[in-house]
Amino acid sequence: MAPLPSIERVSEQSAPSLDRLFRLMAGDLERVNALIVERMHSPVALIPQLAGHIISAGGKRLRPMLTLGASRLCGYHGDRHIAIAAVVEFIHTATLLHDDVVDASDLRRGRDTANALWGNKPAVLVGDFLFARSFQLMVEDGSLKILEILSRAASVIAEGEVHQLMTANDTGTTEEAYLSVIEAKTAALFAAAARVGAVLAERPLDDELALERFGHNLGVAYQLIDDMLDFSARQTELGKNVGDDFRDGKITLPIVVAFARGDAEERGFWRRTLEAGEQAPGDLDRALGILERRGALAETLARARSYAAAAVDALGRFPDSPLRRALIEAATFATERSF
Amino acid sequence: MAPLPSIERVSEQSAPSLDRLFRLMAGDLERVNALIVERMHSPVALIPQLAGHIISAGGKRLRPMLTLGASRLCGYHGDRHIAIAAVVEFIHTATLLHDDVVDASDLRRGRDTANALWGNKPAVLVGDFLFARSFQLMVEDGSLKILEILSRAASVIAEGEVHQLMTANDTGTTEEAYLSVIEAKTAALFAAAARVGAVLAERPLDDELALERFGHNLGVAYQLIDDMLDFSARQTELGKNVGDDFRDGKITLPIVVAFARGDAEERGFWRRTLEAGEQAPGDLDRALGILERRGALAETLARARSYAAAAVDALGRFPDSPLRRALIEAATFATERSF
Repeated sequence: MAPLPSIERVSEQSAPSLDRLFRLMAGDLERVNALIVERMHSPVALIPQLAGHIISAGGKRLRPMLTLGASRLCGYHGDRHIAIAAVVEFIHTATLLHDDVVDASDLRRGRDTANALWGNKPAVLVGDFLFARSFQLMVEDGSLKILEILSRAASVIAEGEVHQLMTANDTGTTEEAYLSVIEAKTAALFAAAARVGAVLAERPLDDELALERFGHNLGVAYQLIDDMLDFSARQTELGKNVGDDFRDGKITLPIVVAFARGDAEERGFWRRTLEAGEQAPGDLDRALGILERRGALAETLARARSYAAAAVDALGRFPDSPLRRALIEAATFATERSF
Repeated sequence: MAPLPSIERVSEQSAPSLDRLFRLMAGDLERVNALIVERMHSPVALIPQLAGHIISAGGKRLRPMLTLGASRLCGYHGDRHIAIAAVVEFIHTATLLHDDVVDASDLRRGRDTANALWGNKPAVLVGDFLFARSFQLMVEDGSLKILEILSRAASVIAEGEVHQLMTANDTGTTEEAYLSVIEAKTAALFAAAARVGAVLAERPLDDELALERFGHNLGVAYQLIDDMLDFSARQTELGKNVGDDFRDGKITLPIVVAFARGDAEERGFWRRTLEAGEQAPGDLDRALGILERRGALAETLARARSYAAAAVDALGRFPDSPLRRALIEAATFATERSF
């Protein structure tokens, strides 16, 4: 067996990307995309129109890729992973639609959000449709175990989103509370998406749990970077608003760190802008300056890298293969990405 | 076998009500309520708080009663109907929460709506939570057949709600389009709730389909009356706003009928108030006057009674029993109620 590549070796070779994983899974992913288009159909024309807008907007398809990759890593050779990967993407899309309503966002992936184009009403209802449709697909697949894993994830996601609302505007939010929010709202679906791969392949529980750990840690790393990138000027070029979280008064790790490290004046600034919601022109720039000075973005990146490393470690029980290397690279990409 | 009571005989004896059905099912319903409270629990305190607000608001529990009643009518003697009835109520509650957001309603059953009290955000997310939780309960029950019936219903409900949005403000809406909306958004859950009763009792498909027909026709009758009552002054006493649908530009059967029977001036009035959304003080009163004069409310009631009669007919294959009589009375109640 060839020596296993470390994170360092992969990232030394070239900028880590998802390309390798996508190339390995290209055929499967094409079938997932075709199934998504087929199953978001409805005689009510607005449904495929609105769902198609967000699904075709070119997300990374990272979550369904986890299902595809995990199942293949476990030696699965059947067809069921296609439908289950589509289920994962439907659940994700439903939560995106509802998130954008909840956050009143008008831009996602460089395009107008569905709620900005069609209003909140259809965005809520089409989210419900996709969610229901995802369960129909699982029922057709017929595995109660997969239904259990993904219905639990869906319920945890909703809990995490409500929990996030409750921590919004609260500069007293602890790092633990923040982590518990992102574990629920983001990592739970990553974890479930990867775990069901092992279920499809009928592998022992230990493999299921290892893949769940992989997905979980990858999901936390991914969300940490998302929260960091919300304060990155490069976001503008990439079709996202900079400072959306700041304007919404969301308390993410960069804020938690900067608040903990801040002096009285800075804490006053965070309280005014995030708790009282009194924001004036120039406040976002000032926030960016404080985050930089307090090392809050670097700290967030460091944490993300630890989680990514834990994700890679979770793959330790699987033998080396091009697919395993691609999954390791995906974990590295999650922390080195700028979009 | 005693002669079967006709709708007329039941309603001659006394005002039809749900009391008889509730008395027969009281023990079961108490267990359903306890399970609902237990399973809407979450460590995120706002979830049981908000869900409890709407669930305890004293809805009629008609949909879970259908599951309980249908299963008992089919001779079911186990315990699973309790959880499945709770599932039906969770799905219904989730759609109510999202409906109130979509309609921007501030009053339901005489109380402030969840969105009025806590804002739209948690109302959307707690709806998602209840929906996910309902699937978890079904997975615990373990019947793929029940999962199939109720996930299909959930998907049809969402389609109906979107379809309704698309017919809003369109005075050209046909009666067929209106019926197709309410069959999806209301009757589908009534039908599924009743049908799963036969599934629990492992009765033949014909019994399933008969109960589905019962639920479907009852659901259409129920929604027709709901739409009629939206124009009834008695609603004020009963904790609902009169004319909510009118203000929202919703095209319900009373409007479809009045528009069809109206003269040019009246059609102009409907177009201004419902299509252009230009409503002035006094317009609701004028609308009520036209609806009365054109017999639109009476026509709606007559249609509802036909559907209720079809619901009763669907029970024809089941032998007479106190429970069957109570279900027949529930169908009559649906059209004679004033709340």
